[in-house]
Amino acid sequence: MSCPFASTERSRPQRSPKRVGFEREPIYAVVDEAPICHVGFTQPDGQPFVIPTIHARKGDTLYFHGSTQSRLLQAIASGNPICCTFTFLDGIVAARSAMHHSMNYRSVVAFGSGHLVTDEAERWEAFELTVEKLIPGRWENCRQPNESEAKVTAIAALKIEEASLKVRSGPVSDIASDLDGPYWAGVIPTEMKVLNPEPDPHLPQGSTTPDHIQALVKPC
Amino acid sequence: MSCPFASTERSRPQRSPKRVGFEREPIYAVVDEAPICHVGFTQPDGQPFVIPTIHARKGDTLYFHGSTQSRLLQAIASGNPICCTFTFLDGIVAARSAMHHSMNYRSVVAFGSGHLVTDEAERWEAFELTVEKLIPGRWENCRQPNESEAKVTAIAALKIEEASLKVRSGPVSDIASDLDGPYWAGVIPTEMKVLNPEPDPHLPQGSTTPDHIQALVKPC
Repeated sequence: MSCPFASTERSRPQRSPKRVGFEREPIYAVVDEAPICHVGFTQPDGQPFVIPTIHARKGDTLYFHGSTQSRLLQAIASGNPICCTFTFLDGIVAARSAMHHSMNYRSVVAFGSGHLVTDEAERWEAFELTVEKLIPGRWENCRQPNESEAKVTAIAALKIEEASLKVRSGPVSDIASDLDGPYWAGVIPTEMKVLNPEPDPHLPQGSTTPDHIQALVKPC
Repeated sequence: MSCPFASTERSRPQRSPKRVGFEREPIYAVVDEAPICHVGFTQPDGQPFVIPTIHARKGDTLYFHGSTQSRLLQAIASGNPICCTFTFLDGIVAARSAMHHSMNYRSVVAFGSGHLVTDEAERWEAFELTVEKLIPGRWENCRQPNESEAKVTAIAALKIEEASLKVRSGPVSDIASDLDGPYWAGVIPTEMKVLNPEPDPHLPQGSTTPDHIQALVKPC
């Protein structure tokens, strides 16, 4: 069994402590389900940036790919502190009172620092992990990178040092004196839907959608 | 007509310039449609944080609410530089080649600095804007804040100084020599669905869902 992350001044959300956890398994469930994350880094002049990007994970390491010229990749590779946030919206919480409106969500905030990956075997594994993260089963069903494509693609690894998961779920939490009020209350669930694939116009006529693509679809 | 934001070293994404725009109208369309954003700030020790939160907008100003003790609210109110990012995932792009896999997306990255709002009229307007942003029509259909609720809720305003919109849309962009290859290619669209409301168990029997709630639902 893996041990939980430490609860530190940095990683511990200050509000609603009951919603917060530090166990690796539920944290990584969110990281692995999230199609993207938002990476935060700070430039030398103190300006923070938040950039959405695709990630992959192996153990406590996140992998990011991009152009060798990318500001994001350079920031992760620099070794400076990084924050990486993974968020799902699960519902709109319509309370009777304005101030108890909320959202249901799952959100992981992870901290660490990165480096450029130069080992060719690890780079290749990161390519594969990234494609498989986007579409499980895809790596063996696409043309794998050639030498020149690999050359212009940087891989940065980020070791997760601390992380926390914050979750709000369940019904509205109005105060007792509002419960008999005249207002409707409830939760309006939200979710990310994956719709029917749109085949590329250049495919030969009669091409069928392969299983690994069809498996992505969450039908209504 | 409002003028576009300036394209600066800070606001100009370095990759794929054809995907980038600085016009206010499409930028604010994304900001207003996004149910949440990811706010980036840097602590004095250089550690960046990325926190998801609900926002509201009026003109070039974003409003954020929270506990007066909130790290996020304090960071925005501090006047230090902030980055605020709004992201939609519109599809998974399955190219024939591993390296041309991508996502369709719309993403706004906005920069500015904030302050604590102390004017009571502006605070009240921000409360209303925030509830209306979450659920249009809700402010007149819920119990509005009382004095003690308002007192413990801080409002921070962020003036947007610069912002850019980056969009990827449309089909896969494989290289010509891959088009006749054996691999399936296409786009698998994704979207945020709003599902049927779950009424609060404490509602009186026979309560009907009001129009302003039903209007949120995007049926399959």
